[in-house]
Amino acid sequence: MTGAERTSVSRRKLFGMAGAGAALVGTGAAAGIGANRLLGGDSPAQAAQSVVEFHGEHQAGIVTPVQENLHFVALDVTTKDREKLVKLLRTWTDAARRMTAGQEVGTGGAVGGAPAAPPSDTGEALDLAASSLTLTIGFGPSLFDDRFGLASKRPAALIDLPLFPQDKLDPARGGGDVCIQACADDPQVAVHAIRNLVRLGFGVTAVRWSQLGFGRSSSTSRSQSTPRNLFGFKDGTRNVKAEETDVLRDQVWATAEDGQPWMAGGSYLVARRIRMHIETWDRESLKGQEGIVGRTKGAGAPLGQTAEFDTPDFQVGGAGGEKLIPDDSHVRLASHENLNGARILRRGYNFVDGSDGVGHLEAGLFFLAFNRDTRKQFVPMQQALSSKDAMMEYLQHTGSAHFAVPPGVREGGFWGEGLFS
Amino acid sequence: MTGAERTSVSRRKLFGMAGAGAALVGTGAAAGIGANRLLGGDSPAQAAQSVVEFHGEHQAGIVTPVQENLHFVALDVTTKDREKLVKLLRTWTDAARRMTAGQEVGTGGAVGGAPAAPPSDTGEALDLAASSLTLTIGFGPSLFDDRFGLASKRPAALIDLPLFPQDKLDPARGGGDVCIQACADDPQVAVHAIRNLVRLGFGVTAVRWSQLGFGRSSSTSRSQSTPRNLFGFKDGTRNVKAEETDVLRDQVWATAEDGQPWMAGGSYLVARRIRMHIETWDRESLKGQEGIVGRTKGAGAPLGQTAEFDTPDFQVGGAGGEKLIPDDSHVRLASHENLNGARILRRGYNFVDGSDGVGHLEAGLFFLAFNRDTRKQFVPMQQALSSKDAMMEYLQHTGSAHFAVPPGVREGGFWGEGLFS
Ligand code: HEM
Ligand code: HEM
Repeated sequence: MTGAERTSVSRRKLFGMAGAGAALVGTGAAAGIGANRLLGGDSPAQAAQSVVEFHGEHQAGIVTPVQENLHFVALDVTTKDREKLVKLLRTWTDAARRMTAGQEVGTGGAVGGAPAAPPSDTGEALDLAASSLTLTIGFGPSLFDDRFGLASKRPAALIDLPLFPQDKLDPARGGGDVCIQACADDPQVAVHAIRNLVRLGFGVTAVRWSQLGFGRSSSTSRSQSTPRNLFGFKDGTRNVKAEETDVLRDQVWATAEDGQPWMAGGSYLVARRIRMHIETWDRESLKGQEGIVGRTKGAGAPLGQTAEFDTPDFQVGGAGGEKLIPDDSHVRLASHENLNGARILRRGYNFVDGSDGVGHLEAGLFFLAFNRDTRKQFVPMQQALSSKDAMMEYLQHTGSAHFAVPPGVREGGFWGEGLFS
Repeated sequence: MTGAERTSVSRRKLFGMAGAGAALVGTGAAAGIGANRLLGGDSPAQAAQSVVEFHGEHQAGIVTPVQENLHFVALDVTTKDREKLVKLLRTWTDAARRMTAGQEVGTGGAVGGAPAAPPSDTGEALDLAASSLTLTIGFGPSLFDDRFGLASKRPAALIDLPLFPQDKLDPARGGGDVCIQACADDPQVAVHAIRNLVRLGFGVTAVRWSQLGFGRSSSTSRSQSTPRNLFGFKDGTRNVKAEETDVLRDQVWATAEDGQPWMAGGSYLVARRIRMHIETWDRESLKGQEGIVGRTKGAGAPLGQTAEFDTPDFQVGGAGGEKLIPDDSHVRLASHENLNGARILRRGYNFVDGSDGVGHLEAGLFFLAFNRDTRKQFVPMQQALSSKDAMMEYLQHTGSAHFAVPPGVREGGFWGEGLFS
C-alpha cells in the first residue's frame, strides 16, 4: 500500500467516525447500529485492521476469514477483442486495489471530478470503512473457447461440470465467462464494489447473473465462531481452515505441475445455488434432522460425541447395533474418510431471494467451494451426496458454475496476468 | 420484560460472547466480523442495549432508529375462519415478544423440545444477539373484505392506492392482507424472525411476496448519521425524526378522531419497490445528478447552502436568475413547502435482487413510509413526483402496497387486538 493510499483510507475513516460518533451518543437501540463501521473507523490502527491486503501469493477471499456479506456476479464478455479484455482486467485490478483499501474507484472519486463529467465512483460507500472487503476473480470454461485464443491455456481441471442426479438447473443462474466474488462485513460495501466493477466493464462485459448472501454459512479460520445455515445447524465445523497450511497445499492451491503454470497458487471455485425447502425441513423431528446431518443441532457435535470439534467416529454403533452417524447422513458422505481423502474449502452464504410464488420464501444456501482439482474433489463428493444424501430430499440445486481462480496479484500486476501473457 | 426473559437473553448472549471472543483473538481481518454481535454480547448491560422494547403506545420499528437490515413479508390469509386468524395473531405476538427479546420462538426453543418432535424454533439465530430486532405488523385493504366481518372497521385512510403516472406495477410484488416488517442489525436475525412467523402461520397465511433490504436508506433519529442510497446521495436528511414529537403527532400517528378508534396510535405504511436504473444514472454528470436531487452529493447540502442540515432556500437564484434548486428537482417537489405542509416518515432500504436478465443488476430502493393519512400525505407527494420529478427518468415503480399499522401492544395484549374485539 502506498502512502497516498493510506491517507485516503484515513479520509474515509474520518467520514465513518463522524457517523459512528453520532450513533454512540444515541439511544440504546441506536448503539448497535453501524458497529462494523465503528470497529473500522475508531482509530487509524483499528481502521487498518478492517483492510484485507489485496496483493499476495494467493487472491484474498479464499482463506480470508469469511466476512458477513456476499455479492457475487458472473459476467459474459461481450467483445471479441482480446486487447479490450486485457485492458479491462488492468482497470479492474486498479479499482479492486483501491476499493479493498477503502478508497473510491478512480482518482476523482465520487465528488472530486469535474462537475460536468459523471463521477468516477458511484458514491454509495463514501462514508463507509473498507469493511474487510475482498475481491476475487475467476475465469469460466467458456472464456477458453476460440474468441481470445485461450484454448490451449484451459486447465484440465476446469471441466464443464457434469449434470448430477436431481439437478434442476436454471441456465439463467449458471455459467459465466468471468466471476467476481465480493465479500465484506457491510453489504453496501460489497454491492458498491461489484456495481463499480460492472460499470467499468460496460461495453466489454455484461452481467449474466448475480447473487447476494448473508450470515456467512461457513468459517475458514480457527479464529472464527461457526455460523449457522438456514437448516439451523452449525456449518463449517470441519471445513478446511486457513491454519491448516498442509491441507491447503494438498487440497486447495493448484501448482504448475498440475498442468497450467499460470494457475500456480490459484484454485478452482464451484458455485451452486441450492434452494432449501425450509418448510418441509421444519416439519422434521429434531432427531430426524440430526440423523440427516450426522451432528447435533445445539452444539454441532458429531453424533456419539459431545463437543463441536470432537472427531467424528463413523464406526461407533448404538444399542441396537446401527451406526450412530447414519450411512446416508450428510457428514458421513461428505467426509474425507469416505472420499479417499478428498476435501474442499467451503465459503458459502445463506440467501433469501423473495418468495417462490406459491406461498413460501425462496431460501437456501449459495454454496461456494474452492479446491485444487474439481474432478477429484468436488465432483466425487457431489456424486456421493446427490445420489445418497438423505438431505437431498430437502434440497434443489438451481444454479451451477465453475471457475479457474488465478493466483494472487503482485504489486503492479493485474488479475489474470499469467493467463494473458 | 420478566425475570425469566432476562435470563434467556443472557443465555443467548453467552453463546454470542464465545463467538465474539474467538473473533477477537483472530487476525486483523477477523476482528471486524460479527461486530454487531460483539456490541450486543459484550456484557449484560450492553446486551440489553441491543433489545428494542416490544410493548408501547406505538409499535416499534417506526420511529426506532433505522436498523441496518430489513426482511419484509406480505401474506395472504388463506382461511375464512376469523377465530383461526385471531388465534394466529395471538401466537405471532407471543413469538414477536420473545424474538425481539433475543429468545427463541416457543419454550422448547431450537433444541430443548422432545427429540421426536420438530423443534419449535428453526435455530439459525441460536448464537446471535437480539440485534435491535423490531417486528411491525400491518393490515392491507383486502383484509377488510367480507371474509372476516371487518368491512365497517376499514379506515377511510386505508385506500386502494391510485395508479400513478409511469407506474409499472408487478402484481406479484404488491398487495397483501397482512404485512410484517422485520428490521435488525443482523440480516440473519431479521430473516429468522420472518421465517418463524411464516412457519407459525402455516394453514392460516401464505407468503405473497417478500423483500430483503440493506444499508438502511434513511435515518429516523438525530442520533444517526445519514446513510446513502444507490444513487450515491445521502438519504433521510430532511426526514421526520423521532425527536420531532410535534411533527409525529401531526403527521405520523393516527388518532381516534381520524375515524377508527382501533387505529389510535397507529399509522399507515406505504411500500413501493422502486427499481433504480443505476447504469443510466451513472452516466449523468455530477452537476446533473445534483440538480435532479436538489442537493450536493458530497455533503448532502441543499443547493446554494454548504452543510447537510442547512435549511433549503427554494427561492434563491443563480447568476442567470434561474433557481438553484430546480423546479423539477426531487427535494423541491417532495418538500412540505411545496405540499401544503404534508410530510412523511421514510424508512426505506436499498436492495439488489440479482440481475435483470439483460445485463444489469436489479437494484433499487424498497421505499417504506409511514404517515397519518395516506390520502393527504403520500398520495399528493407521489402525484407531484411521478408527474414532475426529473428523477423519474431513472426510476421504475415495480411494486406497491398499503397497510394500516395498528397501535402498539400492551403487556398481555396482541397485534390488532383493537380491530378484532
Ligand atoms: C444446502 C446444502 C447444504 C447444507 C445445508 C449443508 C450443511 C452441512 C452441515 C450442517 C455440515 C456439518 C458441519 C460442518 O462440518 O461444516 C456440513 C458438512 C459438510 N458439507 Fe455440507 N451442506 C450442504 C451442501 C453441501 C455440498 C453441496 C457439499 C459438497 C459437494 C458439501 C460438503 C460438505 C463437507 C465436505 C462437509 C464436512 C464433512 C466432514 O468432514 O465432516 N455440503 N454440511
Ligand atoms: C428510488 C427513489 C428515490 C430516491 C433515490 C430518493 C432520494 C432522495 C434524496 C437523495 C433525498 C434528499 C435527502 C433527504 O432529505 O432525505 C430525498 C428527499 C425526500 N424524498 Fe426521496 N427518493 C426516492 C423516492 C421518494 C418517494 C417515492 C417519495 C415519496 C412519495 C420521496 C419523498 C421524499 C421526501 C419527502 C424527501 C424530503 C424532501 C425535503 O423536505 O427536503 N422520495 N429523496
